[in-house]
Amino acid sequence: MRILAVTCHPDDLEIGAGGTIAKYADRGDEVVLCHVANGNLGHVVIPPEELGAIRTKEAETAGKVLGAREVISLDVGDLFVSSHDEKLAAEICEVVRSVRPDVILTHDPNDYMRDHVETGKAVFNGSFSASVVYYITDSPAFPGNACPIYYMDNLGGVNFLPTEYVDISDTIERKLDALRCHESQIKWMLEHDGIDFVDFVRTCAKFRGFQCGAAYAEGFRGCMVWPRIPTKRMLP
Amino acid sequence: MRILAVTCHPDDLEIGAGGTIAKYADRGDEVVLCHVANGNLGHVVIPPEELGAIRTKEAETAGKVLGAREVISLDVGDLFVSSHDEKLAAEICEVVRSVRPDVILTHDPNDYMRDHVETGKAVFNGSFSASVVYYITDSPAFPGNACPIYYMDNLGGVNFLPTEYVDISDTIERKLDALRCHESQIKWMLEHDGIDFVDFVRTCAKFRGFQCGAAYAEGFRGCMVWPRIPTKRMLP
Amino acid sequence: MRILAVTCHPDDLEIGAGGTIAKYADRGDEVVLCHVANGNLGHVVIPPEELGAIRTKEAETAGKVLGAREVISLDVGDLFVSSHDEKLAAEICEVVRSVRPDVILTHDPNDYMRDHVETGKAVFNGSFSASVVYYITDSPAFPGNACPIYYMDNLGGVNFLPTEYVDISDTIERKLDALRCHESQIKWMLEHDGIDFVDFVRTCAKFRGFQCGAAYAEGFRGCMVWPRIPTKRMLP
Amino acid sequence: MRILAVTCHPDDLEIGAGGTIAKYADRGDEVVLCHVANGNLGHVVIPPEELGAIRTKEAETAGKVLGAREVISLDVGDLFVSSHDEKLAAEICEVVRSVRPDVILTHDPNDYMRDHVETGKAVFNGSFSASVVYYITDSPAFPGNACPIYYMDNLGGVNFLPTEYVDISDTIERKLDALRCHESQIKWMLEHDGIDFVDFVRTCAKFRGFQCGAAYAEGFRGCMVWPRIPTKRMLP
Amino acid sequence: MRILAVTCHPDDLEIGAGGTIAKYADRGDEVVLCHVANGNLGHVVIPPEELGAIRTKEAETAGKVLGAREVISLDVGDLFVSSHDEKLAAEICEVVRSVRPDVILTHDPNDYMRDHVETGKAVFNGSFSASVVYYITDSPAFPGNACPIYYMDNLGGVNFLPTEYVDISDTIERKLDALRCHESQIKWMLEHDGIDFVDFVRTCAKFRGFQCGAAYAEGFRGCMVWPRIPTKRMLP
Amino acid sequence: MRILAVTCHPDDLEIGAGGTIAKYADRGDEVVLCHVANGNLGHVVIPPEELGAIRTKEAETAGKVLGAREVISLDVGDLFVSSHDEKLAAEICEVVRSVRPDVILTHDPNDYMRDHVETGKAVFNGSFSASVVYYITDSPAFPGNACPIYYMDNLGGVNFLPTEYVDISDTIERKLDALRCHESQIKWMLEHDGIDFVDFVRTCAKFRGFQCGAAYAEGFRGCMVWPRIPTKRMLP
Repeated sequence: MRILAVTCHPDDLEIGAGGTIAKYADRGDEVVLCHVANGNLGHVVIPPEELGAIRTKEAETAGKVLGAREVISLDVGDLFVSSHDEKLAAEICEVVRSVRPDVILTHDPNDYMRDHVETGKAVFNGSFSASVVYYITDSPAFPGNACPIYYMDNLGGVNFLPTEYVDISDTIERKLDALRCHESQIKWMLEHDGIDFVDFVRTCAKFRGFQCGAAYAEGFRGCMVWPRIPTKRMLP
Repeated sequence: MRILAVTCHPDDLEIGAGGTIAKYADRGDEVVLCHVANGNLGHVVIPPEELGAIRTKEAETAGKVLGAREVISLDVGDLFVSSHDEKLAAEICEVVRSVRPDVILTHDPNDYMRDHVETGKAVFNGSFSASVVYYITDSPAFPGNACPIYYMDNLGGVNFLPTEYVDISDTIERKLDALRCHESQIKWMLEHDGIDFVDFVRTCAKFRGFQCGAAYAEGFRGCMVWPRIPTKRMLP
Repeated sequence: MRILAVTCHPDDLEIGAGGTIAKYADRGDEVVLCHVANGNLGHVVIPPEELGAIRTKEAETAGKVLGAREVISLDVGDLFVSSHDEKLAAEICEVVRSVRPDVILTHDPNDYMRDHVETGKAVFNGSFSASVVYYITDSPAFPGNACPIYYMDNLGGVNFLPTEYVDISDTIERKLDALRCHESQIKWMLEHDGIDFVDFVRTCAKFRGFQCGAAYAEGFRGCMVWPRIPTKRMLP
Repeated sequence: MRILAVTCHPDDLEIGAGGTIAKYADRGDEVVLCHVANGNLGHVVIPPEELGAIRTKEAETAGKVLGAREVISLDVGDLFVSSHDEKLAAEICEVVRSVRPDVILTHDPNDYMRDHVETGKAVFNGSFSASVVYYITDSPAFPGNACPIYYMDNLGGVNFLPTEYVDISDTIERKLDALRCHESQIKWMLEHDGIDFVDFVRTCAKFRGFQCGAAYAEGFRGCMVWPRIPTKRMLP
Repeated sequence: MRILAVTCHPDDLEIGAGGTIAKYADRGDEVVLCHVANGNLGHVVIPPEELGAIRTKEAETAGKVLGAREVISLDVGDLFVSSHDEKLAAEICEVVRSVRPDVILTHDPNDYMRDHVETGKAVFNGSFSASVVYYITDSPAFPGNACPIYYMDNLGGVNFLPTEYVDISDTIERKLDALRCHESQIKWMLEHDGIDFVDFVRTCAKFRGFQCGAAYAEGFRGCMVWPRIPTKRMLP
Repeated sequence: MRILAVTCHPDDLEIGAGGTIAKYADRGDEVVLCHVANGNLGHVVIPPEELGAIRTKEAETAGKVLGAREVISLDVGDLFVSSHDEKLAAEICEVVRSVRPDVILTHDPNDYMRDHVETGKAVFNGSFSASVVYYITDSPAFPGNACPIYYMDNLGGVNFLPTEYVDISDTIERKLDALRCHESQIKWMLEHDGIDFVDFVRTCAKFRGFQCGAAYAEGFRGCMVWPRIPTKRMLP
């Protein structure tokens, strides 16, 4: 299978679906990661231009740890992601056309902040266009129907009832290693604020694991609209 | 009564509410249909400019089959419908003011693709403005409250629990005849892809019919916000 | 039409649907009211046996004010209503068979106390049996399908989102007059506790009225299960 | 895998999950069907004692068509199924212990009539006890956790949003053949009432198929409680 | 505590949360009110430019009645509030930074018209940015997490199930006095349309009061997203 | 305040609300714990009669650790808790009357197994009766309205969205110590099955803590029915 994860800031993918991505990769699926925002406002000291570049690099390193074939950045500035941005819609469509995924992972439109909410909607919108022949982007239209979308758990698992779970017991360490690649975030929070974000993410995975009888797990819910509903399991 | 249906692409009205519209017309209500998008991207061969014109014509023919007094097209390009488009908001307001409907039918904002979602929201927004005197469009403000809105079933009936049903046993054939007027869609799908879309739509109506004890039915849910809640049945 | 309201204690009908019942009666529908419990525990002074008789009489008087043809009491003791009581199920079935209603009104199974919850479930259960030929009660089986059920608003309107509203502006005073017939409750609360329950009920009706553009209204939600879903308005 | 379906009346299994059961059987899973009620009240002419025996036999024939290893009847009389019946709870527990299923299919507790509702709850209750050592039935306790439960679609698909779908395109005819084995129901309805129930069931399966891109499908939702949540697909 | 209420048109605050605001002020909390729209289209006779100025003044008077420290107007024209308006997002962020609230009150995104819906979303979006150092507005970033948001009741209480209630028995008259300050709305409706809007608002507060055992109350629901969830009561 | 927690098996209280109970006790509230079931079937080796006695004692020890004034056991056998058991209803009523609580904690009726579900319903039912004068138990009727109920988190946090959180950072160790008092469960699972249940419970509390910005937390949702809705925080 071909898997496309379109998440918002660098590190969001690792938080929400890192273990699942590693599991896909481990079983031989082809995985492409795409970050919509460059994370340029995610620091109290490092200025935006500098930070954007740093985080794009961190995301690439993390993607390798997870076994992704490619890590794409759409380079939207933090706090400016919009599902009404036609340029972004076209870019997401082009990513979908170039990857031709069997399944897409993205943010739940009920997540905790605008960029995530808008990413979820933009992916819903942009991925639909991939099969529309006269909607022109660099790559030709993707034949067939819009593919299934799975929404990742919200940050902190708040207000989210997963309908499907992935056992990530075998990939939890890789998920956390990938998360640690985001040094500008993880290391900084630990050293300057005393916040152990890796522990936060591990705990969430352990909690979701308890719910489904696994040591560690990630939860998802399918986007239930025509024609995105599958009759087989799309998650690993 | 005066009925206004504001749906997205030509053929969406027929799929979601064709039987209901015909029933309204049959009992003497005045019906106006309005298509927000021109459907110009709805084909794999026919180019957009040509297709837009073809489909606008198909919609007019279909509207006549259903007994509509008028078929309006707002001529937005496919994949570009937006509830944040102020021009569209004003155009929908103007349509509402010119029709002065007792009830509006439109897409559920949980439908399967952006244009439908945004149409549902744009109608919610635009129809409110109709009574605001100093919001200026060609026609004068429509006195009184915003009128009831009913959301049509989602495509394929996915993720939709109707709260009201219309028995369309007497108009199912007219609904399907109107649907067949959209030759660029229906005939093409049948001949080139082997997809019998008329059968799809008939089956959905039969299923909704089973649910309410009718041979064929269409399902709706009322938009429950002040002051759009009626104390009598607005559906035929 | 023939209307059957099966509510719990005497006065519950008046609180939840008195205006609707009066409206049915006013337009010529035949209305039968049935109280499951006798209300025998509804007082701090009057002992149960005495109170049961008093309240049964109050219910009859109130029923006349609303225009009901008949008021039936199933005489279950307060706090002992159970949807798992086979005798009660049979009695409700018999009531349904003797009345042959086109629509049934009862309590929402999410209401505020056990007797109401269980009444709602018992009516759901018992009314189904009415058409089952070999389920024997005094009257013969009622041919045809189980009829539509509408659940009344919860006490105080808590946790209830009506899907249909009845304009009771013309019958609000009759509703309140019928309520006042329950002297052992209404008059007592006013004189001994200083609680003006009639004002409580009037305010709820006024609030529901605001929601639907009427001076006074009552809210309901249909019980959405096969084959109880109608294609026309069952409420007046 | 070992599959246990505990449904209510004979023919309920075929209506809700016949195609899925046949698919399980086709791929080599071991399937046991269990009917809680004997269906003895399901006729307007044939008396209960006679009908119970007839329908039990019809259920066995239908079970063979679907490829079930065994068809068990718990022989509860129609309209008397109760989740508060301790004898029934013990019997369901015993069935679970004797079968040791990997997954259980049953009715959704929101279905259209009491027996179905109570069956869904009784299975939820009874299957939990299977692993409790000192809860004594004929078979020893079933080691390990309570297994996943999937609720079948409600009758007529009313008020049910499936979270998982099974493509039954290959087994739809077998599903309908099994349904036809219930002659006392299907043939009778057709000949005496002119109701083509097989067509009803086929249409529902076709509708659920449209929703998930299959010719025919059945919809289910998982019972989401600890420890019944799996991390792999339990449906075929 | 510091309280910030960001509502849409002048008078919306009084309708939804006037009693709560007065209660906050009475107990010594510092309250700032902010109106996003200037209400310039809220009249059938007075022209927009004139009305905007009148209503801004009315809002200031009303704010004083409620005990607010300050009343801010963002001066967006009616029917043009948009959560995708970056200027508005920045302005809301700046208001949050200048006030440094412990809690924010705003409109529920399910309210009855676009400006309210968009205000609710814009506040959700804009208030998040307050702590982002490199998102530049006049005031410096607000250290710490995004603060709790409480959504006010929808207009007319439609489609809103409060999760928390505030007893406003002591401040109901002040709430209504503040409401009366909006003479261009309240007095006009009474004199020209015979609509007693103060009575409408009083009735809603009385109804919410019945629900929670108070003479008058206002209902709210918390915005449940990370990190906006408190472990103590934020409402007075 | 007086707090009453009515939970099912010994140890359920500690799992769901141990930290909250300790917090209530720490601030001087009077706490009474009541176990409906005796837990007699909760072991694979120790026989029921023996186990019931052991666990009742463990519950008392645990209750002391949490600071409870008293620990009551209603001594119902495991798997036999029923909300339709009139004796149990009376016993719960009597407990409520003897304690006169300001708030009750119990199981959510959506929890994972019958005894918990039925306990939640039985408490809802039984606690209502406490103020009904002529419903006779040993203690006199409890004057005033039915008190607020808060439902504890489901086991494993499955299918539960808390509306209120309690910060238990100061009492988490006491919660876990109390849990460890249930040696027949906790120690056994650890030694024989290698399951560290204390770690399970700690992780759930840590997860709920992340959601609300605390080191550890417990989540609850209020039972929203008349007249159980408070206007102040009932949780510590």
